[in-house]
Amino acid sequence: MATSRDDELVLLPLGGAGEIGMNFNAYGFGPEGERKWIVVDCGVLFGREETTPGVDVMMPDISYLAERREDVLAIVATHAHEDHIGAIHYLWPTLRCPVYATPFTAKLIEGKLEEAGLRDKVRVKVVPLHGKLTLGPFEIEFVSITHSIPEPNALAIRTPLGVVVHTGDWKIDPEPLVGEATDTNALRKLGDDGVLALVCDSTNALVAGESGSESTVRKALADLIGTLKGRVAVTAFASNIARLDSVAKAARAHGRQIALVGRAMKRLVEAARATGYLADFPAVLDEEEAADLPPHRVLYLCTGSQGESRAALTRIANGEHRNISLGPGDTVIFSSRIIPGNELQIFALHNKLAGLGVEVLSAEDHFVHVSGHPARDELAQMYRWIRPKIAVPVHGELRHMSAHARLARSLQVPQAVTIENGHMLRLAPGKAQVIDETPSGRVHLDGQVLVSEGAGLSRARRSLAYAGMIAITLVLDAKGRVAADPAFVMEGIPEPVHAAVRDAVELTIRKHKHGDEDALKETVRRVARGAAENAWGKKPVTRVELVWV
Amino acid sequence: MATSRDDELVLLPLGGAGEIGMNFNAYGFGPEGERKWIVVDCGVLFGREETTPGVDVMMPDISYLAERREDVLAIVATHAHEDHIGAIHYLWPTLRCPVYATPFTAKLIEGKLEEAGLRDKVRVKVVPLHGKLTLGPFEIEFVSITHSIPEPNALAIRTPLGVVVHTGDWKIDPEPLVGEATDTNALRKLGDDGVLALVCDSTNALVAGESGSESTVRKALADLIGTLKGRVAVTAFASNIARLDSVAKAARAHGRQIALVGRAMKRLVEAARATGYLADFPAVLDEEEAADLPPHRVLYLCTGSQGESRAALTRIANGEHRNISLGPGDTVIFSSRIIPGNELQIFALHNKLAGLGVEVLSAEDHFVHVSGHPARDELAQMYRWIRPKIAVPVHGELRHMSAHARLARSLQVPQAVTIENGHMLRLAPGKAQVIDETPSGRVHLDGQVLVSEGAGLSRARRSLAYAGMIAITLVLDAKGRVAADPAFVMEGIPEPVHAAVRDAVELTIRKHKHGDEDALKETVRRVARGAAENAWGKKPVTRVELVWV
Repeated sequence: MATSRDDELVLLPLGGAGEIGMNFNAYGFGPEGERKWIVVDCGVLFGREETTPGVDVMMPDISYLAERREDVLAIVATHAHEDHIGAIHYLWPTLRCPVYATPFTAKLIEGKLEEAGLRDKVRVKVVPLHGKLTLGPFEIEFVSITHSIPEPNALAIRTPLGVVVHTGDWKIDPEPLVGEATDTNALRKLGDDGVLALVCDSTNALVAGESGSESTVRKALADLIGTLKGRVAVTAFASNIARLDSVAKAARAHGRQIALVGRAMKRLVEAARATGYLADFPAVLDEEEAADLPPHRVLYLCTGSQGESRAALTRIANGEHRNISLGPGDTVIFSSRIIPGNELQIFALHNKLAGLGVEVLSAEDHFVHVSGHPARDELAQMYRWIRPKIAVPVHGELRHMSAHARLARSLQVPQAVTIENGHMLRLAPGKAQVIDETPSGRVHLDGQVLVSEGAGLSRARRSLAYAGMIAITLVLDAKGRVAADPAFVMEGIPEPVHAAVRDAVELTIRKHKHGDEDALKETVRRVARGAAENAWGKKPVTRVELVWV
Repeated sequence: MATSRDDELVLLPLGGAGEIGMNFNAYGFGPEGERKWIVVDCGVLFGREETTPGVDVMMPDISYLAERREDVLAIVATHAHEDHIGAIHYLWPTLRCPVYATPFTAKLIEGKLEEAGLRDKVRVKVVPLHGKLTLGPFEIEFVSITHSIPEPNALAIRTPLGVVVHTGDWKIDPEPLVGEATDTNALRKLGDDGVLALVCDSTNALVAGESGSESTVRKALADLIGTLKGRVAVTAFASNIARLDSVAKAARAHGRQIALVGRAMKRLVEAARATGYLADFPAVLDEEEAADLPPHRVLYLCTGSQGESRAALTRIANGEHRNISLGPGDTVIFSSRIIPGNELQIFALHNKLAGLGVEVLSAEDHFVHVSGHPARDELAQMYRWIRPKIAVPVHGELRHMSAHARLARSLQVPQAVTIENGHMLRLAPGKAQVIDETPSGRVHLDGQVLVSEGAGLSRARRSLAYAGMIAITLVLDAKGRVAADPAFVMEGIPEPVHAAVRDAVELTIRKHKHGDEDALKETVRRVARGAAENAWGKKPVTRVELVWV
């Protein structure tokens, strides 16, 4: 392909550079104003009650690309985790471009599009493993790697100005159990041929050593489950198909039949089977059949490893599950990590289970999980294979990306650059450099409405959570005189404070004759807040409305 | 002392049996209705934005003892951590009994009483180390143990019906560095003489092995600090006086002078010195002096290891500290553990520091901390010393207490009992047994007001955080006809939802002629909520008020 002297190759992360989640990386090629773009991954970040109450998921603000929609050639998904594909059905209507993914990933994307009523509109193009595709100036090669889900891919993105290797999420697992091992030959060859930039997973850049293989967990789970007597429930990420298979094999080895419990568990097993995985997965009982088995003959494979309030395991622990109950002599194994921030809800679930007499075994005290992300020795191995001129840590918080950049420098990568969402990094020509800062930020799925983080709704509701709300309505006549008793609504405020607020406001109103209504409104607001602060030590959100009769 | 055949020895935990924090254990002796009580520890639990927004601390509901205040002989504090003494100044006015503690603990209790304006009312009686005291039917011996603060004590509580050993918080640290080592002779002798019940710390009952000694951290910190070039800040729990001393010695060994940053840091060092500890602690610079030193000559010892928003380290990371700023080449060491639930705010602090170019070192990837609580091998050692008839795990969530009870049974303790707050456990005579369930629960310090958890304020504010609030005021005339436009206050609700709510309510009002006002109120409430749910997918807290003109 012909190049012009104004051509530039740029990376614009709109998500994931600063958080683990919400991955969204745009690569642009061409002269400014005429660039063609591809998007690698389009994921969500989950909301949290303490920081974004009432928000289920968040996704990147892609307004910069929305304005250039005609030049966005495709969304390419590296793998099927929610933080890589979970925003496609929300953001596709803005970009309206084809979506490329390998079979298992494509299957799951299609399921989401189906639910969103977009199945007929979106072209999801299936790329075979090791496949290649050309999108304008970009030639993309899918390189099989290993992670904690079937079909993870690194992307080798060839452009006239050099090759970028975008790792997606990965680890080096010599025995991933499901799917292919890391295509080390391809990675080595990329390095030998020369790579401009490695854009790489930072999740475990603070973790020494190696992540360890799924095969070691398989053995450990088999041993552990062999020692257990009563009912056994195992909870794991439903997308970790190798783990589900390990649990199923351990069950079979010890004479237990399995039941899948929870919607995601069934959906993921089905997607895996439909795309050729889990060929020798044992027959699965339904919950009612399983309930009829003796305790030592059953194993439940459940959703809910993060203590999610509506997941199967939480319902079981609450005694609210229709078909399953656990008690003394039974065991629950959490074959998963704790996603930071989920500690309290996970431990609350452990406590509920302990309260039922159930023994809880987890990665905190048993070897029942390995991470899907590269620890420092694996990162070092990747840098030895690829030997890039530029290291760009992504998929991490600042602390992970900084540690990753330090590691890359220590491995003699000539340039390691940490950037934030919205930073447009020119990778070529010349030294890597931030050349622009585009609009960026988060969009919240608040209920069923997409709301910009900048609108401040979450912040407003956190204020309500902190100190509650006072709403006062004053009724005025045509002359601006108070014509009725004020109406008070106080919510989330201790009872004794109510009287203090009422008294202070009523006193203020009594002094008001007529005239400046805006001043009255503001005075009442100030007086109400002040009275609350005096009585309580906190200032509620306070709103005053006027109505006229 | 003479005993009657109706005498019973009971344990009534009102806090700590089900949570790590808010420790409050009452021991009662005598026939029902005539029992005398002592309270061991009286601590707080810290509030959390996601579960108890706007609540600083929580403490036990002690209404059961309040009704028997005349029979409460004393509060005895085992050591000075907030979860053991932090509620004394809130609950003393209810109990009005003397408080007993060893010198360092007494010093800190007095400081709190001073701030609460109770210094003159409360008798804090200083008990020497290894001291004994008699309180009605209880003879109490203080047994020196080790923990992560000076002067931790186990209590041997002798009664006519047997001896209870109440461990408080402990570990087995052969070199605690500050204060005495574990009085193993006394513990052994107690075991040899015969112990009825061991009431014991469960915090680390899920952790294998041993906690490790402060002395190993001292060496590691000295080595680590020796490798650092720029400014160094270390954050640790201010009450871990041995740790502060280790940091100070490491600083001195590497030519750095120290400054104490944060109010708690200064307060704790002062209390330690006033009670004879830290005799060779180096001279401390004030922040201004420290700012004039070259970076490699200074070490800041800071509060804020949990990412507390108002603590020194957070202010430094925000660039809001008057005298201290950190940047590239500087290092912050978190010589502390992450208290579960604090992950996100601690990592947010790490990220801010990483954003300044500061390197962050923490217990996640460096050996800079040991726990103050007994891991399983230490628990086993304690059971070998004490050999109780009854094990009562306390100071833990259910998951810890259950694991602790299983461990005790595996060590052939004849009876291990897990109880909840409010369960009155008869320890003697006869088999240990829950004989009563008293009122229990939590009291929230909400602003400056104490509010029962049962009042539901936190829950109400969480609802506001989830879906915001609608307050509607309707103005009616004497005939019950709507006499003005309704007033709407909507807070925390997306803008497009507002119009939907207004339209639906106005339509409803237009249809209303006169008459049943309660029905109108309820209809408007239902219509507003329904409209919000339709437009948004969430149902705000909705309140409707009527006023009459």
